[in-house]
Parts: sequence; C-alpha cells; structure tokens
Amino acid sequence: MEVVQVLHMNKGEGETSYAKNSVVQKKIISVATSIIKEEVQKCLEKNYPDSMGIADLGCSSGPNSLMVISDLIDTIYATSNQKEIPLPELRVSLNDLPGNDFNNIFISLPEFYNQLKMEKNIGPEGCFISGVPGSFYGRLFPKKSLHFVHSSSSLHWLSQVPRVLYANILKPLNKGKIYISNSSPRSVLDAYLSQFKRDFSLFMKSRSEEMVVDGHMVLSFMGRLSSDPSSEESCMQWELLAQALMSMALEGLIEEEKIDSFNAPYYAPSIQEVRSVVEEEGSFTINCLEAFEIEWDGDAPSNNNFQKYTDKIGKNNFSRGLQVAKTIRAVVESMLEVHFGREIMDELFKRYAELVGDYFSRTRAKYIDLVISLTKKG
Amino acid sequence: MEVVQVLHMNKGEGETSYAKNSVVQKKIISVATSIIKEEVQKCLEKNYPDSMGIADLGCSSGPNSLMVISDLIDTIYATSNQKEIPLPELRVSLNDLPGNDFNNIFISLPEFYNQLKMEKNIGPEGCFISGVPGSFYGRLFPKKSLHFVHSSSSLHWLSQVPRVLYANILKPLNKGKIYISNSSPRSVLDAYLSQFKRDFSLFMKSRSEEMVVDGHMVLSFMGRLSSDPSSEESCMQWELLAQALMSMALEGLIEEEKIDSFNAPYYAPSIQEVRSVVEEEGSFTINCLEAFEIEWDGDAPSNNNFQKYTDKIGKNNFSRGLQVAKTIRAVVESMLEVHFGREIMDELFKRYAELVGDYFSRTRAKYIDLVISLTKKG
Repeated sequence: MEVVQVLHMNKGEGETSYAKNSVVQKKIISVATSIIKEEVQKCLEKNYPDSMGIADLGCSSGPNSLMVISDLIDTIYATSNQKEIPLPELRVSLNDLPGNDFNNIFISLPEFYNQLKMEKNIGPEGCFISGVPGSFYGRLFPKKSLHFVHSSSSLHWLSQVPRVLYANILKPLNKGKIYISNSSPRSVLDAYLSQFKRDFSLFMKSRSEEMVVDGHMVLSFMGRLSSDPSSEESCMQWELLAQALMSMALEGLIEEEKIDSFNAPYYAPSIQEVRSVVEEEGSFTINCLEAFEIEWDGDAPSNNNFQKYTDKIGKNNFSRGLQVAKTIRAVVESMLEVHFGREIMDELFKRYAELVGDYFSRTRAKYIDLVISLTKKG
Repeated sequence: MEVVQVLHMNKGEGETSYAKNSVVQKKIISVATSIIKEEVQKCLEKNYPDSMGIADLGCSSGPNSLMVISDLIDTIYATSNQKEIPLPELRVSLNDLPGNDFNNIFISLPEFYNQLKMEKNIGPEGCFISGVPGSFYGRLFPKKSLHFVHSSSSLHWLSQVPRVLYANILKPLNKGKIYISNSSPRSVLDAYLSQFKRDFSLFMKSRSEEMVVDGHMVLSFMGRLSSDPSSEESCMQWELLAQALMSMALEGLIEEEKIDSFNAPYYAPSIQEVRSVVEEEGSFTINCLEAFEIEWDGDAPSNNNFQKYTDKIGKNNFSRGLQVAKTIRAVVESMLEVHFGREIMDELFKRYAELVGDYFSRTRAKYIDLVISLTKKG
C-alpha cells in the first residue's frame, strides 16, 4: 500500500466527507493558536521580510484549510501594524498529498480573497495562494523560500507502514491488530518507532533546506505522554477499530488474513522521541514542546471545567460514539476501503461507533496532541 | 454570469470530459512548439537564473496540462546541457480558474516526477510544481518571480461578457446570436473589442509586474486574419451553436429570450488588435506574431499536403461534426448549462454536430490560431 496514493481525507461535502467531519482537527488547530501567534511575531521581528513564504503542510480540505491561513494572515497583519512595518507580500503554499481534494479548497479562494480585501485591504498584489501536492517527507519547496511553516494533525501519518510488518504474509507479526497494541510483540513497537524516526528526521532535513535562517515552524500532531507506545492514550482508537474488524471477521464478513495484513501508517510519538529526533537531525532549535489533552469528540478538558465535564457524562454515549466514528471515518476510510473493500465500510463504522460509545461510558477518552515550535538555526 | 465561476473545461475522464476531448488544443500547443523552444533558449541565455520561475496560464486539466510543462523542461534541460550551464531549480506554476479540475492534474504528479528522475535525473530538489487558481486578468504571482510564461488556448476567453450586451433585457442587442455575427449591430462589435482591449491590457500589466526583466512569454489563442470581427474564421463555431439553439427554440425546447440573453465571454482578435494593445501597454517588446490555420478537427493544413486534404474530403462529414461537437462541448458546456439547464445539453450538441458536419461538406472549416512571443522590457 502506497500511503501517497491511498491516504486522503474523504472528499467533497457529503455526509461522510472530511469537510463535514473535522471538528476535532479544528479544536487541535485552536489549541496551538497562541503558540502560532507567538512564533509568527518572533519570525517577523527577526526577518522583516519584503516577501514572506508561508506553508501549511497537510492542509487537507474543507473549512479548516483556509481557517489556518486566515489566522496566520490575521497575526501577520496585526503584528506589522503594531510594529509599524509594511505588510510583507505573502506567498502562501497549501500542501497535501496529491490525492487531497484541492478543488474543494480552490473553489473557496475567490471569496477568501474578497474578504482579505474588504477586511484588511490586502489586494491581489499582496497575497498569493498556491497548492503544492506532494509528500512532506521530502522536498516540496525551492531552497530558502519559506519563513514560516505550519502543520496540524498530519505528522502522525508515516510515509509508509514499516516494511517488517508485511515482510512475511504467512507469519503476520501483529495478528488481529492494526496498530501497536499491548499484545503486539516488541518487534512491532521497534519497527514503528524506527519508521517514525526516519520519517520525522527526513521531514526536518527537507524543511531545513527550504527555510531561511531564523524561519519558524509550529507542528502539532498526535502523540503520547506515556513512555509506553502501547498506552491507551495513543492506541485506543486503533484498538477499537481492530475490535470492530475482528467482530466482522468472526461473522465471516471479512477474512481474518485481511486484518492481519493491514497496519496503520501512523505513529503517536512521545515527547522524548520527538525531542531526540530534532536534536539528532540538528537543523532546528526547539522553542517549546507541549502536550495537550483533546477529548475524542473535540473538547479540550481543563481542570476548571468539571461542571461541563459532568454534564457531558449525561450525554448519550452512543451519539458521542457516532460522532467520533464519523470523524475517524472521514480520515481513514480512503485507506481502509482500498484494503477491505468499499462495501463493508458502513457496517464497520456502525460497529466502531458502538464500541466507541461503550468506551465513553467507561472512561474519558482523550488524545494527546503534541505541539512543538522550532527555529531554523543559522 | 461570473466567468470566474462558470468557465471550466469539463472535469474528470468521462466521455464528455475535456481530458478525453482536447486534440485540437494539443495541436495548437504543438504548432507553437518551435517558437516556445526558441524563446526558452533566449530566456536562459539572457538570464542564467539559479532558480527559474515558469508559469502556464490556463493550464486546464487532462493530458495537455503536463505535456506543456514536460516540453518546457525538455527544452530547458537540452539548452543547459548544450550551453554547459547547470540546470536551474525549476519553479513551475500551473494556473487556471478556481473551478478547474486541479485534482486531475495533481494525481498524475508522482508519475511525472518519477519520469523526470528516470529520464533526466532531475530529483525532488530540482523541480517544484504548484497549482495557482485565479484569473490571469489580474495578479497571480509574487513580484519579479517569473522568467518564462506560457499560455495556450486561453486568452480568447474574456474576463466577462461585455456589460452593454445585457444592460437592457427588454431590448437585447444581439438577438438570436451568442457571439459577434454578421447580423450583429456595430455596438456589439465595439463592446467586444473594448472588453478585449481592457482584458488583454490588464493581462500584460499583471505579467509585467510578475516577470523579471528579459523574461520571455509565448501566448497562443484564437484570433483572425480578417480585419472584420464578424468573419467566418472567427465566428462560425458560435454561429452554428446559435443556429442549434434557435432550432430548439423554434420547437419550444428553449425560450428564445434565453438565447437573446446569452453571449459568449470570448473574443478572437486580429493581429493588428493584439499588436496595438501590447504596444499601448508598453511593458513588452514583440519578438514575433504569427497566425496559423488549424482545422476544426485538429489538423493544421499546409500547402504541401493537398493529397491528405483530398483524402479527408471523403471522410464522413457527420463523424467529423460529431468530433468537433465533442471538443466544443468539453470547453463550453460548463457555461451553457448554467444558463440553459443541463437537461438540454445532449440534444443541443446532437444538433450542433449535424450543423458542423453539414458545414464541413461545404467548406474547409478552420480556426486562426495566433502565436505571439514577447520579452519583458528593462
């Protein structure tokens, strides 16, 4: 399975589209907002560019794609007003894999440009938005062309499933599972970690060639607080999906071998793993590296919202399960249907919704979102 | 009718798609090939850029989009080999209106990059392709970022239908016609010419800001040899489409008012009209300005292929009509269906194919393709 070819968010604007099912990702973007602001400000103060190269990597499609860019432009606009420096010419690149629904983003651009003009008097000579299809695990942009790089909810996707996981079809390493699980042998954990290290390091190296000295980067992606890569906080969404698949295999709706031969091209690293790759690669200094809890259905619980949390317990867990299943479906369906066939998708996500609902009744299901900000060294 | 919103080639890969019906446009590209080569060579010799900005304006989708880029890269590669200068970093921008099927182009990019690597050893650090949605009658690119600009089969589209044509709904100026016709009053001709002048001048001005001094540009588009804007060579494809529409109005399948209120956002200028806009705008010098005859079904007859031409007379005119109707449909259907409704399209293009077939039996139906090459002044 070539990740480049099969991984894309569900296209269009329909019921199962990513455009309609991306509130969690929106939440994740908003969690990083204050960090992004701070880094954009630092970036502008250090560089004072005439023309500023900005990239959003893994932009996906739907409302979130242009929201990120809009927020970035807001910050650049406010900062240059405040510092009384002229607004730089903005060169904005939206990147995702070639199978992404770029048409969906592009059709909204005329309206977006109109708003820029009306709200900030930024005319067509002030902001240039382009689409750049390709994998961010490799070069995407001309050398030294970028001042600010952002990526949200993307870097947990690996460039490929670790090869060792499908090296021996007759003896599957990760039986009945589709990601790291507490029943997975050590070799599975090692293979995932090593793929992550290779990919993330290549990501850093590629960006270091594309970014100017003192350019800034803010990345946020799924990770974990635990040192154990099979901890619930980083695996449970896959564990439940494997359970849904296995329940269908038990009823003969899927071949069990199909499940054994599928593994997610995904890795949720620990803070320490992220830090060590950045330090070893050596092109960037880390400004901050923080972890945030995000509930599976898109809330970020904090200590002072106990009341709100209590209220939610009362909420129908089944409907929460349904919502989470839709969010996950919009993201992973393109991959799953290539492997398992389109015809089982409705049933699979019905079962998944039930399992998620059940999980909600037992625990506060949450992801760990890591946010790291970096500066390109001189 | 906003041209930006409704003009796009038919999407996808189906029977009526532009991807499957663009041989004429391919022919038009190939007619300009030798001129493009010459201009690319001159551009490289004058500029020796480390990093070369290239744009194809009105790239559309389907096989032609990447063919143009592939030819350009071939020429740059051959020239730098021959001159023994290092190949510049290539920044390639594909532009079209936001409704263009960019997804269709992007999905072919991984294969395109593979070929670049295999055939020319150009790796991912050597060529960067992006999509830039927007109207070329305005700014699209950062200042002084382009060294070579190409546009084929696009500049005959105006930014809008001349306003005077739909100023008075009760008294339509161009009754029963959808473009300049020999029954059109002088005011219609004047309105079209004046819209062309405004648009083409804005095109030149926008490019002059985006291009480096001594940057080169090759543009090809529909035009005419005659000084008369209602000559057959520049109007007949619209005249026959109006006839097909009127025959349906006669049978009550369309309201005649619908036809009266539709006019094509199109203009086929004369060589003199093109020259005078370029000279008045003043940012570019003209290197060459030539006209080529292209038969409606994609052949470019020359004087020495009389035998071939005679053979073709024998070809079934109906099947030639059908082919031409498909080509035109792939280009104009997006506009027509917004105005007349999708349900009449099959019948309309059936009638159109018959009228075109009939026209073939009476004459050698041909377009005039103008090719102009220009250099940005210092």
